[in-house]
Amino acid sequence: MEAFFNPRSVVLIGVSRESGPGAYNNLETMTRFGYSGRIRVVHPKAVEILGHPVAASVGDLDEVPELAVISVGRERVLPAVGDCLEKGVRRFVVISQGFADADERGKELQRELVEATRRYGARVVGPNTMGVLDSFDGFSTAFIDLPRDPSPPRISLVVQSGVFQVGLESFTEHAGKAIDIGNGCDVDFTDLLEYFEKDPLTDLIVLHMEGMMRGRKFLETAARVGRCKPVVVFKTGRSAAGARAALSHTGSLVGEDELFEEAFAEAGIVRVRGMVELQAVTRAFRSFNPMAGPRLGVVTATGACGIMTADACEDHGLELASFPESIREGLENERIAWHRLGNPVDIWPLGMVTGSFVDVLKRSSTGLLDGEGVDGLLLIAPVMASPLHRDLELEKALREIQGRNLERKPVAVWIYGDGAKAYEPVLNEIPGVACFSTIDEAVMGLGATWRYERWRRKKTPGDRFRMPEPSPSHKIALPDEGPVVDARAFDLLRHYGIPVAEGETVLHEDDAARVARRTGYPVVLKIVSPQWLHKSDQGGVRVGIGDEKTLREAFEELQALFESRTPDGLLQGFLVQKQVEGVEILVGIKRDPQFGPVLAAGMGGVYTEVLRDVARRLLPASFEDALEMLDSLRMAPLLKGVRGRQPADLAALARLMEALSRLAADHPRLAEMDLNPVLAGPRGCWCADCRMIMG
Amino acid sequence: MEAFFNPRSVVLIGVSRESGPGAYNNLETMTRFGYSGRIRVVHPKAVEILGHPVAASVGDLDEVPELAVISVGRERVLPAVGDCLEKGVRRFVVISQGFADADERGKELQRELVEATRRYGARVVGPNTMGVLDSFDGFSTAFIDLPRDPSPPRISLVVQSGVFQVGLESFTEHAGKAIDIGNGCDVDFTDLLEYFEKDPLTDLIVLHMEGMMRGRKFLETAARVGRCKPVVVFKTGRSAAGARAALSHTGSLVGEDELFEEAFAEAGIVRVRGMVELQAVTRAFRSFNPMAGPRLGVVTATGACGIMTADACEDHGLELASFPESIREGLENERIAWHRLGNPVDIWPLGMVTGSFVDVLKRSSTGLLDGEGVDGLLLIAPVMASPLHRDLELEKALREIQGRNLERKPVAVWIYGDGAKAYEPVLNEIPGVACFSTIDEAVMGLGATWRYERWRRKKTPGDRFRMPEPSPSHKIALPDEGPVVDARAFDLLRHYGIPVAEGETVLHEDDAARVARRTGYPVVLKIVSPQWLHKSDQGGVRVGIGDEKTLREAFEELQALFESRTPDGLLQGFLVQKQVEGVEILVGIKRDPQFGPVLAAGMGGVYTEVLRDVARRLLPASFEDALEMLDSLRMAPLLKGVRGRQPADLAALARLMEALSRLAADHPRLAEMDLNPVLAGPRGCWCADCRMIMG
Repeated sequence: MEAFFNPRSVVLIGVSRESGPGAYNNLETMTRFGYSGRIRVVHPKAVEILGHPVAASVGDLDEVPELAVISVGRERVLPAVGDCLEKGVRRFVVISQGFADADERGKELQRELVEATRRYGARVVGPNTMGVLDSFDGFSTAFIDLPRDPSPPRISLVVQSGVFQVGLESFTEHAGKAIDIGNGCDVDFTDLLEYFEKDPLTDLIVLHMEGMMRGRKFLETAARVGRCKPVVVFKTGRSAAGARAALSHTGSLVGEDELFEEAFAEAGIVRVRGMVELQAVTRAFRSFNPMAGPRLGVVTATGACGIMTADACEDHGLELASFPESIREGLENERIAWHRLGNPVDIWPLGMVTGSFVDVLKRSSTGLLDGEGVDGLLLIAPVMASPLHRDLELEKALREIQGRNLERKPVAVWIYGDGAKAYEPVLNEIPGVACFSTIDEAVMGLGATWRYERWRRKKTPGDRFRMPEPSPSHKIALPDEGPVVDARAFDLLRHYGIPVAEGETVLHEDDAARVARRTGYPVVLKIVSPQWLHKSDQGGVRVGIGDEKTLREAFEELQALFESRTPDGLLQGFLVQKQVEGVEILVGIKRDPQFGPVLAAGMGGVYTEVLRDVARRLLPASFEDALEMLDSLRMAPLLKGVRGRQPADLAALARLMEALSRLAADHPRLAEMDLNPVLAGPRGCWCADCRMIMG
Repeated sequence: MEAFFNPRSVVLIGVSRESGPGAYNNLETMTRFGYSGRIRVVHPKAVEILGHPVAASVGDLDEVPELAVISVGRERVLPAVGDCLEKGVRRFVVISQGFADADERGKELQRELVEATRRYGARVVGPNTMGVLDSFDGFSTAFIDLPRDPSPPRISLVVQSGVFQVGLESFTEHAGKAIDIGNGCDVDFTDLLEYFEKDPLTDLIVLHMEGMMRGRKFLETAARVGRCKPVVVFKTGRSAAGARAALSHTGSLVGEDELFEEAFAEAGIVRVRGMVELQAVTRAFRSFNPMAGPRLGVVTATGACGIMTADACEDHGLELASFPESIREGLENERIAWHRLGNPVDIWPLGMVTGSFVDVLKRSSTGLLDGEGVDGLLLIAPVMASPLHRDLELEKALREIQGRNLERKPVAVWIYGDGAKAYEPVLNEIPGVACFSTIDEAVMGLGATWRYERWRRKKTPGDRFRMPEPSPSHKIALPDEGPVVDARAFDLLRHYGIPVAEGETVLHEDDAARVARRTGYPVVLKIVSPQWLHKSDQGGVRVGIGDEKTLREAFEELQALFESRTPDGLLQGFLVQKQVEGVEILVGIKRDPQFGPVLAAGMGGVYTEVLRDVARRLLPASFEDALEMLDSLRMAPLLKGVRGRQPADLAALARLMEALSRLAADHPRLAEMDLNPVLAGPRGCWCADCRMIMG
């Protein structure tokens, strides 16, 4: 991978003969960026471009360049790559557009590009990319004249658009290295996580992701890298997600974006949802050790900003620390006995009455940072341009505060006033201090460090994202494709120890009555048929049947209904089932194209789609995972017993979910599965209906 | 009110004798700000301060100043105000802290201040304020040396903290006038809305609100002012809201912040939830005509930003406009036939292939702005500092675009690159164009203008927030205080035409059986007693009683339960009620201390508290209001008939809600009321239980 960032020699194919304004000549921009390796240029007609001798073809080159940068029209890419491969080139940056980003022909060309390079063990960045920017080594493949950072920070970017390199200031503000993988046909996020994991010039990794490649491998890698280097992701295309057709409820309830959210959280990837958050979060990770807890101390020159900070804490997962009582005496002043001292510390009245605003600021900041119950500090103070306010020597104060901040807790700063913008760089120079444009952004950034730290303490096992080998120990024959709604589905559940509501599928009315006598009334009666997959909605279910007479009537009605509605349907029978009481839950499995099998659990019955109260987890899911999922539901209070009701048997539910996870692992051809409803009573839970989709 | 912003003469009481750095001398800062009126200073000891002659007392002044600015210690404020009143001063800015912002003594002092000034018909801004800033007239009462805007914009601020004046750049960026009402003991938001409504130097009003005064009057005024001048509010203290004890479900479900949200929306007040949004929204209203619809056209130099814009649109209530097909031909280029042309228009490939990026930018921007289905434009383009990119002449292009933008649709711009920050002021000079720091902020700002415009088109009646006069036409005697749970509550409902589930409250078992025979089985049996307000949770309800034998058993059980649990309780009887089927809804009334009576409707039963799916509306509520409320619920699909179920009778529900609104208007002593559950069936709805709290 190093050859992409700092190649000893490079060949450019597709350079314009023009240069200067409007030419977008990447030979010119590469040179201006300060590349010090050897440059070769191939052009069919030119003899010399910008003083560089030009070869008419790759074969004519006097050496084998380490990297080829290709920006010819899409139809000419493959021939150029072919020439390079033959010459011995093994690394490619394909700038050209019009591949999988465009039409069917583009997709085909991209497939051919991958096949051609794979045969030679070569690697490709792109196509549809701006390529690489490395401010350490002075290498850039961009056709835009980018500024080179004279003191690059140890932040590395992996993005899917050159806008992050061109508009660096608006995204992460700085970067030492940035690579645009474009369509990501070969070199992908996982490759680069592995590279940056070992790169000594990288402390923080920021990803811009439009689409995922190698989902499970990516998560496994990110979770490992995240142990030592924070991984931040700006995933875009949230709004395009969802709305894909699905045969099961679970399928429709596990939306693409919701699954990204869940997967990122589990792998410790810090997700940001927009540019403002990206700026804030990058700044926080660049400047701070992560907060060791959610408790924020606040020192503010105005009470109003204390209130704004409290709002922001609620928005971003932090809380106001308790005021350390040990520092009360040192701050209180009898001349303003009415002043309410607490966290946030409102220092203005104290500063006015003692005559030294800065002194009160230092004492309260240091007092808070010394407090055991404080994990970080937000300092809010004015910086005015006027000579009348020269007394507010913030830099000196902050250097003293940091001198005593031995645990290096984060110190976020929001300064305001007509002198603030110009003064920010002065304060940003102080190690462990960072200025933010707003209170919201300060708290947003701090909150992200705590989210990250909380994950890091959780110790996700290294194989969390690996599926166990399938080892089905039963003999139940399942089809390769299509729905399974009959007794086989229930048999399979029972085999995995999943409790099923007592009952039997029968064809005749007398058998129905026999089953009901055995299970006891009330019973439920349901049509079993692949044409009646949504039997509740279709009217194919009768509940609360209290006696045999009603059962027989219901049987005849359903039989008539089946025949009139689906005369050509396959009737597998009628399920007679003991009616179980309990909270209705849906538990299901979905196989996601990016992330593989996923377990879902949520509110059952008619509420499922309406409220979308569903927890999701990538398989395998343990008993503890299942409990966590149930706990995260909005409906959790219903399960735990609300308003005098008995709590549901959460342990039984979690065991069921764990068993379903094993079942899914053993059956890689299982595409979707609904257990809907599972009825969760105070002692035990039972699956009352089940549907599998294979293939 | 004008005397606060531009007084002919002012007296300062509490000026420091010191001046220069660290003195916070408001005589010094007032002078520096450029005040040109007459200044008088009162000080008990000094003879002269900063060249101004000083009077020892107010009585000694040679004239009656129009305004007094007071910043003495809190105990000395009232005597000073008294002296001024006697002298004839009628306008006060009380800078001093330690009033209602502090302790009980402070609250008392504030009450006394209000009483003293009211007697003289005088007006007070503050206490606990930085006072006034008027860059037009050069008047500032701040003790901070603030810069005066040489070309003030027509934006006026009403705030509750001086931080907005001191840190103007971080909040609204600019302001022509700003007034900090501090504790708002007298002059309040409504006064200032009325003033700025008529002020020719105000086009946009921004409020920072910690607490509300005169809720209904404020809303009425804001809704009127909002017809011609947008009113933006930054309401802080969101997190402190809620958690107040309430006797009814409705009470606990109408949280303080949720009510502000609802009230602001109805009055057309544009609410922002943080500093970032405040900046973005202010900028949008300052620069743009409101969007006439939600449809955004996007011209972008990079596809990745098109995706980010789509995400932001979803977040902020806008949508991507359909691509106007009429402009396709003028943009397409056969050399990149693979290029997918649509909205967002990705101009980079087109610019590269045609050789003029700016030309494509102009043609697509103008094409979109001309489109009937486009309500605004977001333009995304790079601005590089490098001389190699001098060809990207954005300013010229944008002036041409605006020259053809005859309808003056908003043109928001996000520029990126190392030349962007310096270039923003150049583009911001172009009328109807505004640059934003991020795509998110651009869309946030545009979205707010559409939210405002949509409200403005709705034509809320002028008396929307006025309660009709109470005119109860019944003879049902209600207590002044305490709960009403007996037949009187049901009688009252019936009087207002609210359907009640058939039934009767009885004391004897035989009567219960008689009632049940009349209504028909199944029935419900409930304990009626003020000690059993939460009878469902307490086990005082039996449902699904199918025959007389079961009824008699249940009667005896409940009787025994009542006696064992509440031997000293007041048993008003047992309610025998026909069991009605339908979706369970809660409908209720709450009287809010800020906003008066509020109607609430939401999901009933055990789901009420768990899901908090509740719509709220200030009374009076019409039939249409009620329908809108029901439609806004997450559970709305359940009411409209989900998965084959029959829809509930929404019209009957809305009629019930409208009737309840009238009932509440007629009974100003009604504090809280729950109709819970109301059962909404396919044909009609019935209240099955009702509780009123008076007082």
